[in-house]
Formats: sequence, C-alpha cells, structure tokens
Amino acid sequence: MHAFSVPKMFEAKLANAGLLKKIVESIKDLVTDAPFDCSETSMSLQAMDSSHVALVSLKLEVGLFDTYRCDRTINLGLSLSNMSKALKCANNDDTCMLKYEENEGDSITFTFADPKRDKTQDVTVKMMDIDSEHLGIPEQEYSVVCEMPAAEFQKTCKDLATFSDSLNITATKSAIVFTGKGDIGQSVVTYSPSANTDDESESVSLEVKDPINVNFSIKYMNQFTKATSLSDRVRLSLCNDVPVVVEYPIEENGYLRFYLAPKIDDEENME
Amino acid sequence: MHAFSVPKMFEAKLANAGLLKKIVESIKDLVTDAPFDCSETSMSLQAMDSSHVALVSLKLEVGLFDTYRCDRTINLGLSLSNMSKALKCANNDDTCMLKYEENEGDSITFTFADPKRDKTQDVTVKMMDIDSEHLGIPEQEYSVVCEMPAAEFQKTCKDLATFSDSLNITATKSAIVFTGKGDIGQSVVTYSPSANTDDESESVSLEVKDPINVNFSIKYMNQFTKATSLSDRVRLSLCNDVPVVVEYPIEENGYLRFYLAPKIDDEENME
Amino acid sequence: MHAFSVPKMFEAKLANAGLLKKIVESIKDLVTDAPFDCSETSMSLQAMDSSHVALVSLKLEVGLFDTYRCDRTINLGLSLSNMSKALKCANNDDTCMLKYEENEGDSITFTFADPKRDKTQDVTVKMMDIDSEHLGIPEQEYSVVCEMPAAEFQKTCKDLATFSDSLNITATKSAIVFTGKGDIGQSVVTYSPSANTDDESESVSLEVKDPINVNFSIKYMNQFTKATSLSDRVRLSLCNDVPVVVEYPIEENGYLRFYLAPKIDDEENME
Repeated sequence: MHAFSVPKMFEAKLANAGLLKKIVESIKDLVTDAPFDCSETSMSLQAMDSSHVALVSLKLEVGLFDTYRCDRTINLGLSLSNMSKALKCANNDDTCMLKYEENEGDSITFTFADPKRDKTQDVTVKMMDIDSEHLGIPEQEYSVVCEMPAAEFQKTCKDLATFSDSLNITATKSAIVFTGKGDIGQSVVTYSPSANTDDESESVSLEVKDPINVNFSIKYMNQFTKATSLSDRVRLSLCNDVPVVVEYPIEENGYLRFYLAPKIDDEENME
Repeated sequence: MHAFSVPKMFEAKLANAGLLKKIVESIKDLVTDAPFDCSETSMSLQAMDSSHVALVSLKLEVGLFDTYRCDRTINLGLSLSNMSKALKCANNDDTCMLKYEENEGDSITFTFADPKRDKTQDVTVKMMDIDSEHLGIPEQEYSVVCEMPAAEFQKTCKDLATFSDSLNITATKSAIVFTGKGDIGQSVVTYSPSANTDDESESVSLEVKDPINVNFSIKYMNQFTKATSLSDRVRLSLCNDVPVVVEYPIEENGYLRFYLAPKIDDEENME
Repeated sequence: MHAFSVPKMFEAKLANAGLLKKIVESIKDLVTDAPFDCSETSMSLQAMDSSHVALVSLKLEVGLFDTYRCDRTINLGLSLSNMSKALKCANNDDTCMLKYEENEGDSITFTFADPKRDKTQDVTVKMMDIDSEHLGIPEQEYSVVCEMPAAEFQKTCKDLATFSDSLNITATKSAIVFTGKGDIGQSVVTYSPSANTDDESESVSLEVKDPINVNFSIKYMNQFTKATSLSDRVRLSLCNDVPVVVEYPIEENGYLRFYLAPKIDDEENME
C-alpha cells in the first residue's frame, strides 16, 4: 500500500441511534463545534465550553459499536447543533451508521434504519474545520470520590439553584453535603451512606481520604446533569482547589466527563 | 306540506365528540371560516386556505352519524376558531348533537352528553355568512398512489423541514423517496415496499404507472399532517405538474383531503 | 417554669410533603404573604387576595400530622412564593418536618426525608412580619349546597371562561345550571342529580331550600379550582347576594375554603 494515496475512511455502526442522540443533547449547549478524534480503538472528543470554564471529555470505545472501521486517525469536525438536527430524524431504536470518505467531499452521512421496516434514512451533514487543541489533563489523586444515582445528583443541583448561584460541597468520612445559600434562605442536602441499602442502583457510595470544602458555579453543574439520561450513575471526584470531575459511564465502554474549576473568590459561600 | 313555509332544519348526532374535535383541529389553522354543506346524504366542506395555495375537502357521510336529519340542503357558515372553542368543552367520549333550526336565529347548538352522568352541556355558537364558491375538482388519473402509516408520513415531513423549505418526492416502481436539501446538509428517506411486512397497518404500499419527480412546500405538508390523529393511514396521489392529494380516510364513511399544487420554479431542488 | 422566659417553639411533621406542596400551589397566586396561625389544635391561615375580593381560609387540624407540638400560640409569616420554592425541593412522598424556634432567628426550617434513603434535606426560609387581621366570617344558612367531583367543577369553570368573564349559577330542586354567555356564543352546563349513580365519587348531590340565581367572576373561580389536586370532591354553598363558599375538604381533618362575593352590577348576565 502507498501510504500517500489511500484515502481516509471511517465507518461505524451503533445498534441504537438513541445513544448518540443523548450524548449530543448532553453537550450541545456547552460546546458548539466538536472535533471528533477517530482512531483504531475509539472515537473521542475533547473541548472547552465557549467561555473556557468547563472541559468536556467524551470517549466511545470500539466495544460500543456493532461494526467499526477506521484505517487511519481522522479528525471529524462537526457542528453539534447540525449533528443534533440529523439525530432527531432517527427513532431511538433505529440503527445508526456513521460514514465518512475523504473523497466524497467534506460531509459525514448518518444512515438510520429500522430492521422491521422497508425504510432507510440518509442524513448528510457538512463538516467544518475545527482547531482541535488537545489539552493534557494531568493525572490526579482525588481526596473524595462519591458515586450516586445520576437522577439524584440532577435533582439536588436543580433544587439548590433555586436558592443560590453557588454550590458548596463538603465531605467528611461520614457524609457528603451539598449547600445552596442565598437571599431567601438556604437548602442543605446531606447524604450519609450506610451499608444497608437494598437497592444498589439507588445507593450513595463515598470514599474520603481527606475532607474537602469547595464551591462551584451551579449553572455549569446543571448543564452537566443533562447527561443524566446517559447513565444511571454519576461519579464525582473532588479535591480542594482542583477541578471536579463529573463522570457518566457509557455502558462500560466509554464515558462522558465534565471538568469544572472551583470558584475561589466567593467568600459568602465559604464557611 | 307547503314548500315555501317549511323552515330549514338540521340535526345530526355523533357517537364521539372527539371525531369532530380532531377534524376541526386539523384544519382550523389552514381555513378560518368554513361553509359546511349539509345534504340528505352527507355533511361536507370545501375551502381554500387563506393564501389560496391549498384546498381542503371534507366529507362526512350519513353512515358516520348515529342519527342524521337534513330535510333540505343547508349551508352552515361557522368560524372554525369558535367551533374549536365549542368542541373543547366536550370530553372525547361524549356524544355530540349538532342542531340548527332556521327560526331559532343564526346559531348552531352543540349538545354534549356523557350517558353515564346526569349532565348535559349545550354550547351555542353564532353562525356567519360565508361565500361558498364550489371549486370543481377535475377527475384525475394519478401516476403514483402511495399508502403509508399516517404517523410515518408526519415524521418524515417534520424531519425534512429541518433541512429545507421544499419537499422533493420521486417515485419509481421500486421505491418512493422524500428529500429535503438545504444549507446544513440533506436528508433522504427511502421506502422500498416489500410484500413481507407482517403488520399490515405498518406497511407502505406503492402503485406506480409512471415515475414522478415533484416538489412541494413543506410548510403546507406539515399543516396537513395535523390530521394524523384522524386516521392510521394516509394516501398520497401524485402526478408531475398536478396538485398532490393527501387523503385521510374517516372510518370508511368519509375523508379529509388536502390538495397542494407543486412548486415549479424551484430549480435547486430539481434533480 | 417562668412564663416570660420560655421561647416559643413549633414542630410538626407531615407524612407526605406533597400535601403541603399542593396547598401552597393552590393559593400562592391568590395570596402572596401568608400569616399561619399555629395553636395547640391546628395550623390555620386566613387571608384576602391582593385585590381584596376573595378570602382564603385554610385549616389543618392536628389529626393531619404525624407529630405536632405547639406550646404557645404562634404566628408564622411566610412568603408563599418562597415556601413554594422550598417545597419544590421535596419529593411528594418525602416526610416533611416544619420547625420554628424563637431563639434560632426569624426563619422556619423544612426537613424532607425519604426513609428509604440515606439522605436528608433541610431548607431554611426567612420569615416576614405580616399584619394578620382576623376577619370574622359570619355564620350563614345557605339556600343551596351542591357537592360534585372537583375535577368536574374545574372543567366547567374552564370551559365557560372560553365564552364569558362571568359565571352565572342558578339552582332549583331539580338542577343546578352553570352558564357563560359572551360575544361568540354561550355554554350552558346542567347537572340534574339522580339517585341512580353507581359510582359515588362521580355523583353530584344537590340540596335546595330556595332557588338561587347569582353571578361570579369566572377568573376567581378558575383560581380556586387550582385546589382540585387536594380533594376528589368540592362543595359549593350558595345564597343570593352572599359570598359563595367553594370548599375542598382535606382528608377529614381540615379544609381549604374560598369565599367570593357575587357580581352585582352585571345586568347582562342576569336573566
């Protein structure tokens, strides 16, 4: 094979279009243009939000796909808004084939099909050049790791946003506490994990090496929790003065992670 | 009986008010004032939309009604907006009696009743003079007749409207193809009918005498598909350079038909 | 104990936060600031709406609460809008503890807990000084008492509001009639109670000492019917020239009552 003459090609098929639809809906208000990095082993995406405060990191490993072919590393730049429009054409249970061929022009084709019907739908979306600056995310030991039902975390963030712009999180060996404090009052939500929860999917687990006390913009947290539909569980990794990681695992073959730096000058919410 | 002294009278009863409610909701954004023609055999309506681009043709035959009495031909002019307000008072399963008596003033009374309750509701709506110009719709042989689930057609029109203002339809013996093409990309939906569909209500049937290639305003198509609640199936009758007929059958005793002329000067969407 | 030095304290627990949530949602658009009177036997509230046309009277007896402690009579002034925000943090099935201690500052704490989870939520809301003028509501013999499904009354008020700003109610031994009459037509809803209703919760009961014919602002009636979620049944107590009472019983241990004076100068709607 002549390395210089083989056109780049990417082809991957998901059993359910719904998965990609949920991912795009989760991040499209945070990130407008997304550079997808496709390699032999995974399709991934790293992007800062438009105000450069939060970082989105998505990884979809080969195991998530029914078929997957990527001969050489490719960067596919797509408007998430257009990608959302394309995916809205699919029913959640339709299969979803992604296809890109270098010679076919600057576009990617989504083919949706319901095997029970005599119907196919080809949606072609124009691609765009996106400067993809890979941000090195340093390895980090976290003081606190907490896993809880994703819906529970979503409701807590939503509730506290009624009272405050800031979310204060403190954790000790015995409990993790979420506080929103404002002019009309305050709300304090306390999880004290115990071993006796019958339903494991409903449980809250908490590992604490050192106590923490950090503040975050609740607006961003509420953006992240749009990924609740992706996963039953969410994992929070926390350290004082270090960005929190809010991670939604994707069927054991990938993840959607959000990184958010703490607020540092918000005296009112420090205790 | 003295022909000249008998007042005109119309009285008809539907088993379910929901049917009339769905009809009115289907057309009230297209046609504001409706001249209902009541004869011995049917209640019908023909009206152009306000921009004179689409034609609505409704026929409700005697068989749809529990009781029906119309001594002489009557034209009842009603504001569909007011008719909608009246019908919203009914529960879908209420019986619905329509009554008009010439001597009782210029109004029509809707009586809704739930036989299981000690309750009746009489809604009286003022009538209006409407110039009812009967449009001769010429008999037409169509090149293509396609029947499909009404919900499927609705979804396809809605999806393509994301990409374009124009809906292109092509059909050959093997497939009918709906295309919407615009700045951000295009969507192509292909139905290739086969005989092996188990569920008949989900099937797509296609009769093609001659291939066609026509373009329509997708905005109007989306208006027509409000009638999806009326019927499981929709029938499209197509010919090059001739208005399409989008027909929703009503319980084998009537229909709601929409006629729409093709777009002719839209070079971009012609292929 | 020195009577002068004992701080006031109030503590009461409801099995379901949903009850208090529904009450607050029912009245928060009518009354902005609410003075709750807490005594040994009940928690109650009386307030005029902001335009001083309607009166809200709420009584929650000790029997509604799982635990209840009120050493001395206390008046707790709360913004219903803030109270609504606090209660929206609760799931309907959470237990709801209300707590006020005089020495703890001017705030009341709502503690929501789901016994099946390792979670508690404390929402603290600032209190406010509200002039609580107790209005003596005179005892009244009513000419007509009608009980009906709350949802039925709600639908009737909503339907008639389409046609008129005024709700006319007439009642005779045989029927109670609700009429809305306006420019586009009129709607007349007639309930003729009979003994043969199988389902008691669906029945309409009517006691008539003297016939009545009264008119009310339909806007206020529609406000009152927000309490429909509180109770399956509503009771209307009517007399000519006297405020109507619209009463929603609360689990046999309390009630939410609305009083509304009749419209007197609305000639058009009198018949």
